Amino acid sequence: MTEEFIVKKIGKKPVLKKPILIEGLPGVGNVARIVVDYLINKLQAKKFMEVYSYYFPNSVFLGEDHKIEMPKLEFYYYKSKKNHFIFVIGDVQPGDEYASYAFSQEILNIAKSFKVKEIVTLGGITSRVDIPKPIVFGAYTDKSYIKKLKKLGVRFDRKGSIIVIGAAGLLLGLGELKGMKGFALLAETTIEANKLGTHAAKEILKVLVNYFGLKIKTKEIDIELKEIKKIKPRIMKKRLIKKAPKPTYPLTYIG
Amino acid sequence: MTEEFIVKKIGKKPVLKKPILIEGLPGVGNVARIVVDYLINKLQAKKFMEVYSYYFPNSVFLGEDHKIEMPKLEFYYYKSKKNHFIFVIGDVQPGDEYASYAFSQEILNIAKSFKVKEIVTLGGITSRVDIPKPIVFGAYTDKSYIKKLKKLGVRFDRKGSIIVIGAAGLLLGLGELKGMKGFALLAETTIEANKLGTHAAKEILKVLVNYFGLKIKTKEIDIELKEIKKIKPRIMKKRLIKKAPKPTYPLTYIG
Amino acid sequence: MTEEFIVKKIGKKPVLKKPILIEGLPGVGNVARIVVDYLINKLQAKKFMEVYSYYFPNSVFLGEDHKIEMPKLEFYYYKSKKNHFIFVIGDVQPGDEYASYAFSQEILNIAKSFKVKEIVTLGGITSRVDIPKPIVFGAYTDKSYIKKLKKLGVRFDRKGSIIVIGAAGLLLGLGELKGMKGFALLAETTIEANKLGTHAAKEILKVLVNYFGLKIKTKEIDIELKEIKKIKPRIMKKRLIKKAPKPTYPLTYIG
Amino acid sequence: MTEEFIVKKIGKKPVLKKPILIEGLPGVGNVARIVVDYLINKLQAKKFMEVYSYYFPNSVFLGEDHKIEMPKLEFYYYKSKKNHFIFVIGDVQPGDEYASYAFSQEILNIAKSFKVKEIVTLGGITSRVDIPKPIVFGAYTDKSYIKKLKKLGVRFDRKGSIIVIGAAGLLLGLGELKGMKGFALLAETTIEANKLGTHAAKEILKVLVNYFGLKIKTKEIDIELKEIKKIKPRIMKKRLIKKAPKPTYPLTYIG
Repeated sequence: MTEEFIVKKIGKKPVLKKPILIEGLPGVGNVARIVVDYLINKLQAKKFMEVYSYYFPNSVFLGEDHKIEMPKLEFYYYKSKKNHFIFVIGDVQPGDEYASYAFSQEILNIAKSFKVKEIVTLGGITSRVDIPKPIVFGAYTDKSYIKKLKKLGVRFDRKGSIIVIGAAGLLLGLGELKGMKGFALLAETTIEANKLGTHAAKEILKVLVNYFGLKIKTKEIDIELKEIKKIKPRIMKKRLIKKAPKPTYPLTYIG
Repeated sequence: MTEEFIVKKIGKKPVLKKPILIEGLPGVGNVARIVVDYLINKLQAKKFMEVYSYYFPNSVFLGEDHKIEMPKLEFYYYKSKKNHFIFVIGDVQPGDEYASYAFSQEILNIAKSFKVKEIVTLGGITSRVDIPKPIVFGAYTDKSYIKKLKKLGVRFDRKGSIIVIGAAGLLLGLGELKGMKGFALLAETTIEANKLGTHAAKEILKVLVNYFGLKIKTKEIDIELKEIKKIKPRIMKKRLIKKAPKPTYPLTYIG
Repeated sequence: MTEEFIVKKIGKKPVLKKPILIEGLPGVGNVARIVVDYLINKLQAKKFMEVYSYYFPNSVFLGEDHKIEMPKLEFYYYKSKKNHFIFVIGDVQPGDEYASYAFSQEILNIAKSFKVKEIVTLGGITSRVDIPKPIVFGAYTDKSYIKKLKKLGVRFDRKGSIIVIGAAGLLLGLGELKGMKGFALLAETTIEANKLGTHAAKEILKVLVNYFGLKIKTKEIDIELKEIKKIKPRIMKKRLIKKAPKPTYPLTYIG
Repeated sequence: MTEEFIVKKIGKKPVLKKPILIEGLPGVGNVARIVVDYLINKLQAKKFMEVYSYYFPNSVFLGEDHKIEMPKLEFYYYKSKKNHFIFVIGDVQPGDEYASYAFSQEILNIAKSFKVKEIVTLGGITSRVDIPKPIVFGAYTDKSYIKKLKKLGVRFDRKGSIIVIGAAGLLLGLGELKGMKGFALLAETTIEANKLGTHAAKEILKVLVNYFGLKIKTKEIDIELKEIKKIKPRIMKKRLIKKAPKPTYPLTYIG
């Protein structure tokens, strides 16, 4: 909420009960974006806020009929029977270190103003080949998540040191300092520039659907994400990353 | 109006009625600068403000007799029978993303203090060859412009994704967030460093003259811009771009 | 204590009497970190503060069981019979000039809030080969230190101009402007990326132990630092420098 | 006087009557530094202020006996019968554009607090060869200087566009916006890294001595600057530029 961020409210401020923030920002294979884009569409989440920033690319897209569109973050909400959610999805996330902190802090400040107590971030882990059924690894700020996530097949035993770069890590780390807890779901995906991490997205989606008891059928995910891959690339690409942070990867040269 | 910008007022503050801001900053082929420079001279617009900035090059030009001149933005006004105008022309525009936002926001803050409700930005679209009669493409923040501009030959159907970089895009995008609407006129021009985009400037000028009913004859434009090309280059160059933003171009690798 | 730094207090605020700040930040051969890490463990110093910063890498480590850990500074205190100490140790120190000043100033502000009047910084001086028993050179803001340090074998006669880069120098320089005095201990060490400067650390440790009359036996240092070299590298590495400042070195091309 | 600058006052605040600021910062051939260093020593000017900055290199020099010295600006004053002077000399000047503006503005703010109304900046113009008796070119913010300076041999007719980079230009340009007037003296000098621009310094010194009626004999300048060249290089070098701005040069590829 500092000067460098410009908040545009859309419609009435939603009344949310301890909403869970789910992050869908650009990154390796655009896994987080695909997952959150899918959830927004499938659950018909409602947009209530847009955020623009000096830390975003200084360029505008021309959309349909050349309508001008600035790079932005979008906030949606969705109320399931069990939980309220805030989805944050964006065209970009800053790659610069300082900007990445300021950007994550801004998201957390907005989250805090809605009394968010829990954060889920998503991401891809780079892999040279596209794995059809990638493992989903977890990371957390609070041990209490391990048990439940393990039951859903999430693993906490990846070899080698792992570093998570960008908002997927900072939202959890900085969030903890603000009294929010949370976890990350990370799945292996190819780093080829034009490939979408749909396999990774699929596996993460299944964990999320089960974890939160969302009314989405696993089979539908399989079918619909295949379609995204076939039909959507042109649309997806237009909204793609300008400045993705460096990938989430195991630092084998360190460990 | 933050600290990094230094405003120098010149003469009395002009009294303007809902003035239209027209942008003439450095860019591809210097199209915007040529157009606005032409309008300022032809309509004998009056300078009322200069703006200096920490985001500009840290150097001064030596002008005639070695008079020191810092890089600056200049604001002029002109009152036609139908409309009041503010022309903003500059030696530079920052290339850095953050600075580009801050710079555009500063121009908009000044515009707002004069109750500007409408913004027109101009620019070149890079082309490998110099097209004698380039097409003028439009972009907008408000659909209402399409019809009138189409009648003047402006097109809204360029193939491939288009990204407009720098103030030409941000002034419209950020302006919209401040309740201002507007459009951009973009024409193809060569990117060769020393060539001026006079062909593109000519076509854009004709659209502007017709759109706003300015008292300038099309024939004069043809003749006088040819002269600029012949006579002015030395003078023009001295005031040229230090740090032009990257060109406005179709991102064929994206679309 | 500016916005870019986030302070997390741990436990009760310790009551300290004119504590001496000892710096253990990443640098050439990680000499300072090894020394201060050793002192913290050996003297069982207590952690009372963590500091996070926008100037640190925008990434998180996954620790044991994938617990998320942000890069941070840690403050410990220790009370000997003769003196109270604050040890500051960190995963990183910013390499960027501006950030390096802001970072050093933040440490000094915290130090000041605990009434620190004296600062000791540590560092390696690059050498092509690993010297088994390196000379310890001193530097100071106040002449009064020379005599006592010379008695302990510290030398003040290195040939060629010397420049100390990063917090090891700035903490003393900026500290002096805040009324704190202090000295640096610098020892030659290899610059090979994976080698730890244990020889340099050992010599510096001996000076510190003698200077402050700490209850640590010289023989133990010899044995235990050998073990660090053998056993700890994996653990050490995980906490190692992201962005080490350029090394402390004699500028033979200048002098 | 913003946060990024740290002012250290030395002794009593001098009482000065409309002092003239003379700039002696690093640059091409260190011409300005040599001139102002000479004047400070010769006129026995008194130091009354030091300024440290986050925009300076994040390193300290080890001086005699390893005393720590941070890079700094120094302000001296001198009262002649006719005029009061403030000399500003420094180890560095920032090369980054934003920092260069902030730095120049800081100097001007200090100047303003002493009621400075007039500024003289100095500099070298790069030349491939070392010219024994270089021409001194002038630049100004106020025409009134031309006549008097021309009488002293200063010329205002250099061919080609000239750009002055860094504080030598900005102090005059930004100073004008604060109601101060002034001029620059620029002389050709070699750009070879290790050569000092003593020829250029000599010619500029003679102009200054004559312009302000200082009690320094031209012959002494000749002899003493020769000595600087012979004897001082080692001492000079130690205080030399970390980050010199790009040179003041004629942009023949533009004009």
